Amino acid sequence: MAERVEMPWWGWGDPEHSRELPAAALAEIERRFGKLADPESLPGIDHFEIPESRVPEPVAAALRSSTGADAVSDTPTSRVLRGGGKSYPDLVRMRAGRPAGLPDLVVAPANAEEVSKVLKVCSESGTAVVPFGGGTSVVGGLSPIGEGQGGVISLDMSRMSGMVSIDEESRIGVVLGGTSGPEAEAAFAAHGLTIGHFPQSFLHATVGGFVATRSAGQASTGYGRIDSNVLGLEMVTPTGPISLPPMPGTAAGPGLRSLLVGSEGTLGVITEVALQLSKAPAATLDRAWIVSGFEHGRELMRRMEQAGCAPAVARLSDEEETAVSLALSAKSRARRAFARYALSKGRGRPCLLITCFEGERDRISGAHADASAILRSGGAKSLGGMPARAWRHGRYDGPYLRDVLMGRGLLVDTLETAAPWSKLEGLYSSVSDSLRGSLGRFGGDPIVMCHVSHLYPGGASLYFTFVGIQPGNNPDERISNWWDVKSAASEAISREGGTITHHHAVGTDHRPWMEAEVGERSLAALAALKRELDPNGVMNPRKLLPDSG
Amino acid sequence: MAERVEMPWWGWGDPEHSRELPAAALAEIERRFGKLADPESLPGIDHFEIPESRVPEPVAAALRSSTGADAVSDTPTSRVLRGGGKSYPDLVRMRAGRPAGLPDLVVAPANAEEVSKVLKVCSESGTAVVPFGGGTSVVGGLSPIGEGQGGVISLDMSRMSGMVSIDEESRIGVVLGGTSGPEAEAAFAAHGLTIGHFPQSFLHATVGGFVATRSAGQASTGYGRIDSNVLGLEMVTPTGPISLPPMPGTAAGPGLRSLLVGSEGTLGVITEVALQLSKAPAATLDRAWIVSGFEHGRELMRRMEQAGCAPAVARLSDEEETAVSLALSAKSRARRAFARYALSKGRGRPCLLITCFEGERDRISGAHADASAILRSGGAKSLGGMPARAWRHGRYDGPYLRDVLMGRGLLVDTLETAAPWSKLEGLYSSVSDSLRGSLGRFGGDPIVMCHVSHLYPGGASLYFTFVGIQPGNNPDERISNWWDVKSAASEAISREGGTITHHHAVGTDHRPWMEAEVGERSLAALAALKRELDPNGVMNPRKLLPDSG
Repeated sequence: MAERVEMPWWGWGDPEHSRELPAAALAEIERRFGKLADPESLPGIDHFEIPESRVPEPVAAALRSSTGADAVSDTPTSRVLRGGGKSYPDLVRMRAGRPAGLPDLVVAPANAEEVSKVLKVCSESGTAVVPFGGGTSVVGGLSPIGEGQGGVISLDMSRMSGMVSIDEESRIGVVLGGTSGPEAEAAFAAHGLTIGHFPQSFLHATVGGFVATRSAGQASTGYGRIDSNVLGLEMVTPTGPISLPPMPGTAAGPGLRSLLVGSEGTLGVITEVALQLSKAPAATLDRAWIVSGFEHGRELMRRMEQAGCAPAVARLSDEEETAVSLALSAKSRARRAFARYALSKGRGRPCLLITCFEGERDRISGAHADASAILRSGGAKSLGGMPARAWRHGRYDGPYLRDVLMGRGLLVDTLETAAPWSKLEGLYSSVSDSLRGSLGRFGGDPIVMCHVSHLYPGGASLYFTFVGIQPGNNPDERISNWWDVKSAASEAISREGGTITHHHAVGTDHRPWMEAEVGERSLAALAALKRELDPNGVMNPRKLLPDSG
Repeated sequence: MAERVEMPWWGWGDPEHSRELPAAALAEIERRFGKLADPESLPGIDHFEIPESRVPEPVAAALRSSTGADAVSDTPTSRVLRGGGKSYPDLVRMRAGRPAGLPDLVVAPANAEEVSKVLKVCSESGTAVVPFGGGTSVVGGLSPIGEGQGGVISLDMSRMSGMVSIDEESRIGVVLGGTSGPEAEAAFAAHGLTIGHFPQSFLHATVGGFVATRSAGQASTGYGRIDSNVLGLEMVTPTGPISLPPMPGTAAGPGLRSLLVGSEGTLGVITEVALQLSKAPAATLDRAWIVSGFEHGRELMRRMEQAGCAPAVARLSDEEETAVSLALSAKSRARRAFARYALSKGRGRPCLLITCFEGERDRISGAHADASAILRSGGAKSLGGMPARAWRHGRYDGPYLRDVLMGRGLLVDTLETAAPWSKLEGLYSSVSDSLRGSLGRFGGDPIVMCHVSHLYPGGASLYFTFVGIQPGNNPDERISNWWDVKSAASEAISREGGTITHHHAVGTDHRPWMEAEVGERSLAALAALKRELDPNGVMNPRKLLPDSG
């Protein structure tokens, strides 16, 4: 099984991963924002103010006897490492040595029975519980909030990892909730199968986390979102377990599986997931294309998707993302190809489209031929496989760049939404304008770029990356500046009929827009559900629901 | 818009539809069960005992002022016509002139605002509400139960019909909840689009009913179940409306859309549905095949489905259904082809498989070629298109035969389930054995036959049809005999890990098996949800949840 890498408290991913800014990127960024600050220095954990644990000793003792004493930790390092996720505010605070809060204890149960005991202790004592899988939340979903409670524990899922069973005939695999993406894929690969779920967080996040946050992988156009692949699951709630067996299709009442998917730890802990698997692809066929603009490119994507020949991965960068990618790229060959294409079309700003087909060789070559015909008839020009393979190679690396730019004094983040095809143009314009306007007030020439990366017959996602000057001098100012940008963009999303989140989940950051999206009665229904399953409100307080604390 | 046909109180479908028993069928049935009774005579509605309306006059007045007096009826005919669905017990009681209950009033609001007013009046006065769409429930979902309440109304959706909007670019169509299948298809066909949802109830049922019962159409293998095509919906609950806009994909918390789908009128009234549509198929390619046994045929279906080349409609009859279909068929040519095949394989009991591909001509010929290769490599032999086209022609007619056989003194019904592929053999054997054993006690040579008709990567449905002698002489005895058969089969389904219903829904008949399927905590969660949205418990009491009354 793949060895798991613990992410550092100060940033994303593998601490050993390169965090160099390529010379071309630095040049482009300094052209836009002026000379960057030197890399910030980070305080060591010994410089953090670590508050006393608020969990009373009898509760701590009960937790130790639930799991064994070895599974409960209150060391500064363990508490800081479980002190939040990887949202911009999380990292701003951590990098300053001033986390918004820390769990009082980190508890790592070994099985569902231990989870059950831990939740019972916590519910009875009013101790908040933040389930912690891979720690990759970028929306504040892991903030250790326990106000009004008798402290807060991080319920660390790292010991609940591995495959429980596999049904090769039905292609259904069952894993424990704390199984990481690579661990699950390695286990299923031995049977020639795959989940096909590869979000940017794949290397670190857990299957339970995928399910709790209703995530979508980069290849969701081919393999489906995680919600469409959850056939069954087991959740331990403070009032008892829920076990929904794997079922291919059922009319037995409301969609309970779908109700637990996306519950973000607010109802219970996902201890086991039964997934619909697909045959591991025998072949891949990656291709990059130039198209004559973002709107036109979206139209071509829509045609492919609705004709049933869309690739597993389809990513279309807007004009800005295309230009920035080229400027940041060391590959002058790609730059020249774009320049030639732009000249030939008499247009200044072409867009990059990547298509990756995966599956049986015959089938993907047929789909690729159909898709290519649609693209060519729309004036798209093939760039060959190289840029697409380059994307595949770096597909999980985006967050490292955020770390670097944050450390050089920039405000940098991503946000995402989705909507029906007919609303994408308005949504794209409004959110882009909002981001550009908000960041522009801080000076420089902000980067606001977007791609479409998840296709559905009825619509698609939009994923924005933005970079601007961060004028704040301390965490509070920095977070306040970020929030101005983020909340204005969220307002624009809400106004234009997009969903407040296509795959990052709600966490703390998107809560204010939930009511506009689903309405007061929906939220009241979810709150009633929470009261039933978690009557003392200990499960991941102040996440997801506006008043779930 | 297609004219709507009101189903008769005594049976299924169009009252003018032929209910003759073909000579070949009569011969086969009398061979098995002995000489049939003469067709039963039916009492006229004037022979029904019609109880006084229990709705107090002030409440009736408030209802009239909610909708206009014309929209409220208490005539015996309107009450009898809304007195239940078309389950076996429903029909046994109706045909004897002894319905289990009648709605006290039939109220037909014209729009969501009127529904809202009606529900407010009913909730405040403790009047039960049974939403009534097409009236096609076969699981007791429409029983006008209002014990402990101040009467019960039938909320007739027939005035809330029609298309609200269409988004051709996104292929999203919005219809009112009371729009019938043919009305919706006619509206969408004008835009070259289709829902692709054709359950056996299609000609009569409503889109709101499809959604409320989480139904699956005969072509669900191609177009998906209704739940996978609901992108948004509006529901009026006694505590207010829920409006979920159409969204192709979202991570904004638990699956609210999926939660309202399958709620069977127990939470509120579905007033509007936004559906993902598909392009109306340019071509169809229907084919029948002979395969050498049910288990082997299922294996071939699994291979087609998992290879991604399954047809829109795939139906495999077991040995018994194949033999009975042939015996009942007037076509001696098909009988001869089967006999030849059986001889050539040295096996006595081949099975009939029907495949119907639908879509763009190129695409379906490709998929058909792939599927045919799988079938031929498994020893299947093509019978040409005729038997498949014959199935297509009679695809909605099954329930008429039930009417006829009931009227000749037989116990006849259908039931259905689904499970992962790996569990189908055990499920099939246990349910078949249970039905054969239960019916066998009543004498004769019972017909117990099954088909697979909905494929998923992870599993498939099983649909059983059974016919035996009905020894009961009055409705109570007949229903008691039926329940012995039904409940034993349901126990077998539950024991073998099948879902208690794949597409008929829960209604009253499947409630006892819900807890075994989803567990106590799931039901408590659904009950909490109901208390929040319907605090006075007026919405469709005693359906779906074991204690929802």
